[in-house]
This record gives sequence, C-alpha cells and structure tokens, in this order.
Amino acid sequence: MDHSSVEYTPIGTIHTDFETAEGMPIQPSVADNAPGAVEFDAVYEPALSDLDGFSHCILLYQFHDSDDDYSTTVKPFLDENERGLFATRAPKRPNNIGLSIVAIDSIDGTELTVSGIDVVDGTPLLDVKPFVPEFDVPDDTESGWIAKSEDGTGRTRADSRFR
Amino acid sequence: MDHSSVEYTPIGTIHTDFETAEGMPIQPSVADNAPGAVEFDAVYEPALSDLDGFSHCILLYQFHDSDDDYSTTVKPFLDENERGLFATRAPKRPNNIGLSIVAIDSIDGTELTVSGIDVVDGTPLLDVKPFVPEFDVPDDTESGWIAKSEDGTGRTRADSRFR
Repeated sequence: MDHSSVEYTPIGTIHTDFETAEGMPIQPSVADNAPGAVEFDAVYEPALSDLDGFSHCILLYQFHDSDDDYSTTVKPFLDENERGLFATRAPKRPNNIGLSIVAIDSIDGTELTVSGIDVVDGTPLLDVKPFVPEFDVPDDTESGWIAKSEDGTGRTRADSRFR
Repeated sequence: MDHSSVEYTPIGTIHTDFETAEGMPIQPSVADNAPGAVEFDAVYEPALSDLDGFSHCILLYQFHDSDDDYSTTVKPFLDENERGLFATRAPKRPNNIGLSIVAIDSIDGTELTVSGIDVVDGTPLLDVKPFVPEFDVPDDTESGWIAKSEDGTGRTRADSRFR
C-alpha cells in the first residue's frame, strides 16, 4: 500500500528523574507516582485551559531514546516468549509513538506537573488529551499474554533490551 | 523551544462505514459497536501475532480528514463553552494524532476486525498497541467539563465543526 508520510513537530518536552530507560518503571500504573513536568512551548498556553479539571491525561510522545530499528516480533519485559510487536508496548515500533496515562497534579502557565510517569527525561511531547473514562475504559477487558505473565507488572523494570 | 520534527509513515488503513465525520459517533464507547477493519501493510503480518489474546486495542491514527488549521481554544461538541484545545479530543490539533480504544473481533492475516470504532473510512493508521487495564486504567478519575456537560456522551454526534 502507498501511504503519504506525515511530519509532526513536538509541542513540548517531558522532564522526569529517569535519565535512561534502565531502571525506569515500565508503565505508569506501576510508576510509584514518579513525578514529571511537561514544559509546553509558549504558544500552547491557552490550549491548556480546563485541562486541570481532569484528574488524568493521555500523553503521546516520541520514543526518542530508541533507535529506528524495530523487529516485528520481540521478547517483552514481562515474558519469556517471542510476541508480535503490536501485542506489546515495546518502544521500538515502525512509528515510535509512546502513550502514557498520568495523573495531573497542577498546571502553571506552560508547565503541567504530573505523577505516575514512565518516560525518559527530555522526551519530546507530541500531544496531550484529557483522559475520559467514558471514552477510554471499555467493559470486559482481557489482557492476553500479559495477564498470564508470572512476574506481574509491578516488579518488572526496564532493562537495556529496548534501548 | 527548538524541536526536531519527526516523520511517520502509516502502517495501514482503517475502513469503516463512516464516509465523513458528520453523523459519526464522537467516541468509541458510544459508537454502538460500529464495525471496522484495519488493513495492515503486508510487512506487518508477523507483528500482529498474539494481539488476538487481548479484548481491546489502542489505535493511533492520523486525523486526515481535518485540515491543518487548529485553534488553541475550541467549542467542543459536548459543551457550549470555549475550552482549551488540550482539554478536548477535537481532531484539529498541532499534531493531528487521534486515539481510539476499540474491541478486537478477529485477526486474519493482515486484517484486524474491530468494533466500537469512531473514525472516518480511509483513516491512515500510525500504531496499534494492546489495551492493558493495569497500565491504562487509573484509579479515581475525574473528567472535568465533560462530566458536567448536560448532553451526556451517548446522544452527541459529530457535526461539521471540526472538519
């Protein structure tokens, strides 16, 4: 299939205490309330109004720390089996877009302070959206191989496998 | 701030019964189980393994139907007040990335059949990730102005405002 590519310019930068992916919690729900701050470019200040009425937001960002190589199957952190890449949250993807749902602590001017974040310091932000349970939480979910993984999600930390 | 822009190439195309945004349900949870099919480019077939073990997936796609103009505040479908763009799910955004959580019905080769989808036919797909409640469903959520909107979400359909 022929597709036209699309060019995106980051709208801000995410700051966290994680200098590298190693040792970072692998997903925000297990991120021990790790704090972070999103610094938006000045032009977006008006776009942040009303976001503080929401408890959580969806951050879409660029996995800038991973190189361009991806493979269509991977061994995820949580598993010892090779899995299809699109059945994982691995950062090396055809389009390296990451997604995290984080708690909104406060918004001051162009700075959004969040907690429960699992991204590397300096990550370029592509978009932020309000998290709306009515839209974003389906009923009767099943989580495939992840539900079956013995480690559980809380005890697993990133290693260098996906850098 | 100076940011390097990033170029993404769609990995497939989403097919639905919605020829235009008008009349389309505005979010998947209210999409009346509207059916859709994602046709992936052939090279990604191995990346789809194991995804069928999950009940839902996250589609990230390009709001290709909206032009490039956005404004930092908008009047959302659900509200009569002007809101900050990033406190809404409006499609016209600095980076026009859309996100929908949909139910996985089946996967056959490079075709992923889904339901509860709210995107326009022909939408270019950027990424698909498994939906994992442990990662994606925070506790104690509040949904700001949307919770207060009188219409509720189920009765509101898209009009031409965001085309």
